[in-house]
Amino acid sequence: MADTGNKKQKLVHTSGAPIYMETSSAPTNIATIKYWGKADAKWNTPINDSVSVTLNQDDLKAVTTVAASTAFENDRLWLNGEEEEGAADNKRFRACVDGVRALATEKKDDDGKVLVTKEDWSKMKIHVSSYNTFPTAAGLASSAAGYAALVAALALLFGAKEEFPGQLTSIARQGSGSACRSLSGGFVAWRKGGKKEDWSDSLAEQVADENHWPEIRAVIMVVSDAKKDTSSTAGMSTSVETSLLLKHRADTVVSQRMEAIEKAFLAKDFETFGQLTMADSNQFHATCLDTYPPIFYMNDVSKSIIRIIHVYNKWAGKIQAAYTFDAGPNAVIFTLEEHAVEVGALMLHYYPEFGDKYVNNPDFEKKIKDFKLDKDLLEATDKTGREPKSGEVKMMYYTSSGPGPQRLTDTILNLDPTTGLNTYKK
Amino acid sequence: MADTGNKKQKLVHTSGAPIYMETSSAPTNIATIKYWGKADAKWNTPINDSVSVTLNQDDLKAVTTVAASTAFENDRLWLNGEEEEGAADNKRFRACVDGVRALATEKKDDDGKVLVTKEDWSKMKIHVSSYNTFPTAAGLASSAAGYAALVAALALLFGAKEEFPGQLTSIARQGSGSACRSLSGGFVAWRKGGKKEDWSDSLAEQVADENHWPEIRAVIMVVSDAKKDTSSTAGMSTSVETSLLLKHRADTVVSQRMEAIEKAFLAKDFETFGQLTMADSNQFHATCLDTYPPIFYMNDVSKSIIRIIHVYNKWAGKIQAAYTFDAGPNAVIFTLEEHAVEVGALMLHYYPEFGDKYVNNPDFEKKIKDFKLDKDLLEATDKTGREPKSGEVKMMYYTSSGPGPQRLTDTILNLDPTTGLNTYKK
Repeated sequence: MADTGNKKQKLVHTSGAPIYMETSSAPTNIATIKYWGKADAKWNTPINDSVSVTLNQDDLKAVTTVAASTAFENDRLWLNGEEEEGAADNKRFRACVDGVRALATEKKDDDGKVLVTKEDWSKMKIHVSSYNTFPTAAGLASSAAGYAALVAALALLFGAKEEFPGQLTSIARQGSGSACRSLSGGFVAWRKGGKKEDWSDSLAEQVADENHWPEIRAVIMVVSDAKKDTSSTAGMSTSVETSLLLKHRADTVVSQRMEAIEKAFLAKDFETFGQLTMADSNQFHATCLDTYPPIFYMNDVSKSIIRIIHVYNKWAGKIQAAYTFDAGPNAVIFTLEEHAVEVGALMLHYYPEFGDKYVNNPDFEKKIKDFKLDKDLLEATDKTGREPKSGEVKMMYYTSSGPGPQRLTDTILNLDPTTGLNTYKK
Repeated sequence: MADTGNKKQKLVHTSGAPIYMETSSAPTNIATIKYWGKADAKWNTPINDSVSVTLNQDDLKAVTTVAASTAFENDRLWLNGEEEEGAADNKRFRACVDGVRALATEKKDDDGKVLVTKEDWSKMKIHVSSYNTFPTAAGLASSAAGYAALVAALALLFGAKEEFPGQLTSIARQGSGSACRSLSGGFVAWRKGGKKEDWSDSLAEQVADENHWPEIRAVIMVVSDAKKDTSSTAGMSTSVETSLLLKHRADTVVSQRMEAIEKAFLAKDFETFGQLTMADSNQFHATCLDTYPPIFYMNDVSKSIIRIIHVYNKWAGKIQAAYTFDAGPNAVIFTLEEHAVEVGALMLHYYPEFGDKYVNNPDFEKKIKDFKLDKDLLEATDKTGREPKSGEVKMMYYTSSGPGPQRLTDTILNLDPTTGLNTYKK
C-alpha cells in the first residue's frame, strides 16, 4: 500500500481513552474475464479464475475511515453518511474486521514504547465511515472498492502482518468477491483456489502493475435502466444451480482464456486482449440467459453499444475498442490512449449529452465534442439501426488504469476525532 | 398426406400439351428443443436433434401449387404473387424439385393407361406458385411451411414413392432445415442423422399426432422490431465457428432434453414440457450471445414477456404457460385450452390492441377482452416493471396444434390452367 502522508494517528475520545484512526482509498476494478458463480458460499469463493483492470482513483474511488477505541460501545458503520443499522453483525463486515484483526501487531510510539498490544486491539470496538466518489447505484463495482478500502484501512489501523502473500486479498474476498482484485493496481488475477480446506488460497495476484501498459483507457457508459434485475449473489446462486452452460464455462473455457489474456496484457497485445474481453463478457451474459428463470443484465441500449463497437473495429480494420458488461446494463469500453477521443466521440454522437456533468472529465469532454468522426465510419455505424438519442445513457466516465489502495492522511476525517462518530455528509 | 378432394388434375396448355397440377397446404412448426448449427452445409443437416409442435393450418399456413408440362420453357417460381428471378437455379429449390422427381412413378388414368412415364416427368419444366396466409416477414417460420408445402405438392404431382419412411422429410430438409418437421402434424422430432454418408438418415419422425394432446394451444406475440438481425443461415455458421457453449450444448445437453420432452409430451405433462421449452429457448439464445460477434434476436419487449410468464407461473403455483423464441423477437407462448384465455388476457393487458385485426381470432379476441384478470396476479406482474403500452406488439395469433400437409382440390388455382402462369395476387 502506498503511503501518501504522515503517521500521526493518536486522537483522544471525550472520555479520555485514545482513538486510533486510519483512512484509505481504494479503486474499483472491471473484470475482463468474469467471475460468476460461487464454489463455496461460506468462504465466498468462485467457480473459476477471473482477471480485471484496476481503474484510476482520480476518477472513481471509495474512501474509508476506520477507528478503534475502548471508548466505543459498539461496532458501527456509516455508508455515504448514513448509518447501516445492524451492519456490524453482517457476516461480510465481520469477516473483514475480524480477519484483519487476527493479523494485528503491537503499536509502538516513536520511542519503541508499546501503546497497544495485539490483545488490546481485540478489546476495542470499531467505527467505520465509507463513501464513494461515484453513484453507488450506478453499478460500477462500488462494493469491490468499498470492501477493498475497508480492508486496506483496517490493515493500516491494526498494523496487520500477512502470514502469506495475498492474505489480505483473501479477507477482502469474504467481504465482496471482486474486492480482492481492488487491492492491487494494473491487471489483477483472482485465483480461485480450493486446494486448501479453508480456501485461503483463493486470492488475488497482480499480473502487471499500472505502469506496465499506461496507454489503457476506459470509456464508461452509465446506461439508464428502469428495471433493476436480480442481485449478483442471488443471480449467481440460481445460475450455478440451473445453467448447464455455466458449468462447462467454468470447467473448461475460462482457464484457457485466463492464460491467453494474461499473456496478451503482458505483451500489450490489444487485439487479443480486446477480443477475449468482449467474448468473455458475452459468455458471462449467455450463462445468465441460460439460467432458469433467465437473468438479463444488458438491455437494448447495451446491445446497441455492442453493435457500434463491432462496426467501429471492422471499420478500423483491427480491434481498437472492447466492451465489457458486468451485472447491469453499463458498458465499460477499453481502448488505448490514441483511440480514446475517437471512441468517446462516437459514443457521444449516438448517446448525446443528457443533463449536467454528462462527462466526468472536462478536458476529455471538450476533445470529444471537437472531434470530427469519419464519414464512412458513421455511415457504417448508422446501419446498426441506432439513431442519436439522449436520455438512455445518463453519464460518461473517462478513466485509465491506476494503482491499488492509498493511505490518506491529509484528507478531511470521516469520523470525529473526539467521538468517533460519522462526520461525512453526502 | 390427407386428401381433401377429387383427383381430376389433367389440364391442357394453349399449345395442346397437357398440364399436370397439384396444390398442397402445409403448416408452420415451432421448435421446443431448438435447431441451431449445421453439421453439413451441403446437406443442410443439424448438429443436434430438435422437436416441434405443428401449428394449425386454419390459422397459419403456406399454400403451394406446382405444375409440370412439356409446354413450359423454364422452371419458374412465384412467391406471394411475385416471381423470384433465378429461383429455379437456387440450390434449395433444386434439391426439392429434383429430389422428389427422383421418386416419381408412372401416372395412369382410371382405366390403367399410362399417361406419363417416370422418364416423361424429367422432360417437363415446373412452375410453382406459393403464398402464406400470414406475413412472411413476421418471423413465423414461413420458409418451413413453404418448403413443406412445395415438397408435399411435388410428391402429389409426381406420385412420389418413398424408398424408406421419412425420405420426403429428408428432401424438405434440404430446402429449409425445419421444413422437414412440417410434413407431419402434432409433435415432430428431427433426428440429426449422420450415420449414412449421404445424410439420408437426417429426417423427421412424428412423436405424437395432433389428436394425442388436443388441449395444446399457442398464443403468438408478433413483436415489432426496427432492427432486423442476422439471418439464421449466417448466424448458425458464425455460432458453430465461434461459440464454445454451442458445441457443449449440441454434444451433451440436447440429447437428454429430447428424451425428456418426448416423454413429457406423450405423458401430457405440461409442467415438464413447459419447463424444458423455456429452458431450451433461453439456451439457444444464450449460444447466440456467446457467438462472436454476438447475435441478438430477442429485444427488451421479448424479455418483458419472459418476465411476465415466469411471474404468471409462480402466481399459478405451476407452469401453465411456456414461451419460446426463434431467430427473432416474437414470442410463441404454449399453454393448455383451460388457461389460454387467461394467458391471452394477460398479454392483451400489457401489450394492448394496436391497429386493425390485432388478434387473428375474433372469438378469442372477445373472450380475452371480457376476461377479468386476478388482482394479485396483476400486482405481481406489475412488479416486472412492464407497463401496458401498445405499439410494441403488432399482432397476436391464437392457434392450436394441427395436422401435416393437406391436398387441396377445391381451392382457387394459383397457376393458370391453360398457361401455367401465376394467378395469385397478394
